[in-house]
Amino acid sequence: MQSAIDQRVSLAVSTVIFALRPHPESGLMTLWLPLVRRIREPYEGQWALPGGPLEADEDLAASARHTLERTTGLTPNYLEQLYAFGSLDRSPDDRVVSIVYWALVQPDEVARAVDGENVEWFVADELPPLAFDHTEIVDYALARLRAKITYTPIAHAFLPLEFTLAELRAVHEAVLRTHLDPANFRRQALASKTLVPTGTCLQGTSHRPPALFRFEAGPPSHAPEERR
Amino acid sequence: MQSAIDQRVSLAVSTVIFALRPHPESGLMTLWLPLVRRIREPYEGQWALPGGPLEADEDLAASARHTLERTTGLTPNYLEQLYAFGSLDRSPDDRVVSIVYWALVQPDEVARAVDGENVEWFVADELPPLAFDHTEIVDYALARLRAKITYTPIAHAFLPLEFTLAELRAVHEAVLRTHLDPANFRRQALASKTLVPTGTCLQGTSHRPPALFRFEAGPPSHAPEERR
Repeated sequence: MQSAIDQRVSLAVSTVIFALRPHPESGLMTLWLPLVRRIREPYEGQWALPGGPLEADEDLAASARHTLERTTGLTPNYLEQLYAFGSLDRSPDDRVVSIVYWALVQPDEVARAVDGENVEWFVADELPPLAFDHTEIVDYALARLRAKITYTPIAHAFLPLEFTLAELRAVHEAVLRTHLDPANFRRQALASKTLVPTGTCLQGTSHRPPALFRFEAGPPSHAPEERR
Repeated sequence: MQSAIDQRVSLAVSTVIFALRPHPESGLMTLWLPLVRRIREPYEGQWALPGGPLEADEDLAASARHTLERTTGLTPNYLEQLYAFGSLDRSPDDRVVSIVYWALVQPDEVARAVDGENVEWFVADELPPLAFDHTEIVDYALARLRAKITYTPIAHAFLPLEFTLAELRAVHEAVLRTHLDPANFRRQALASKTLVPTGTCLQGTSHRPPALFRFEAGPPSHAPEERR
């Protein structure tokens, strides 16, 4: 590692963008994310998280939103600061601190995604080797998502406004990569008190149409740049 | 607000350091934090969170640890990245993004704290107006601490290795600024499965000495720079 004493520290904002799509082999719903192929050194030709240097006239969340839109054409509702990565040796030629945001994309948005130049979507658990420390960043984001879905209603970010318990369970199964017992899941979901029955049922289905729910609006985010 | 287009973005690391001490009037345990009086403009003479520019040869957590030691003489076990603050107008003369860490100080450490120059401790809910957006940062840290204590065993950071349920309740009461019913608290604490009885009792007390507990070691942190 080179001497870092005289280096200036520069600041980048990167984004981990998760969406649920069927796995190409199993057909099961699974987590995907878009990556960008690097067109210059270092790591030329390798895949990296979408992002770029923080512009002086952009706040952090705005920078993440611009990257998102440039990469996928999307403007997801769920965009949250994940973590700042600042190890000394994470970039070979200079000292870069990356503030990472993560976005969760709803199903109607997934259908509207338009890939930017050099952008491709990958199954999140089957990535090629990534540039910089981006493998570590994705692993951290996956761990956070899998932890958070067990104690917060974060699954709503992957669902339409109204959904059935089977749809909610499918999101949990996709994120946690496991089969969940329908009866147990139903009992725990209803006990969590975060669900509100809409009083209506899924239309167009035959006998015993499943009830629709929406999420109870939670407390507003305390994070300054994420308040709506 | 000045045009920010041609500005360089610089990077600072600040720390919110919480410790429990008796309130000067009520005598009840309450949250305190150390502030540093600014000795130059902007905000000369006002109080601010301890911190400074990120040095090129320091990673983020190391920078926070150095600030902590310089300010309080302490090296707390609990040091975690809180949030990166990057609004365009948070500093009047230049564009600064601050990555904020928070530290929770154990009681035996509080006793050893040695205040640095221009450092003073304040009751966290009774602060003077702070420099920059530091009031907003403290409010965010307090909100996170008060949320987190309800669903994680973060209280252990304010306790010695072994403690009684009354001591644990006192930490919750101090952080949440409320009285908690002892019987309810006991039932919920034991139901949370994060406590392990040590099999011993508090020594030196008279009849019915209270049992001692320790926290079950949780899963290791996923945060890259905070792994031990």
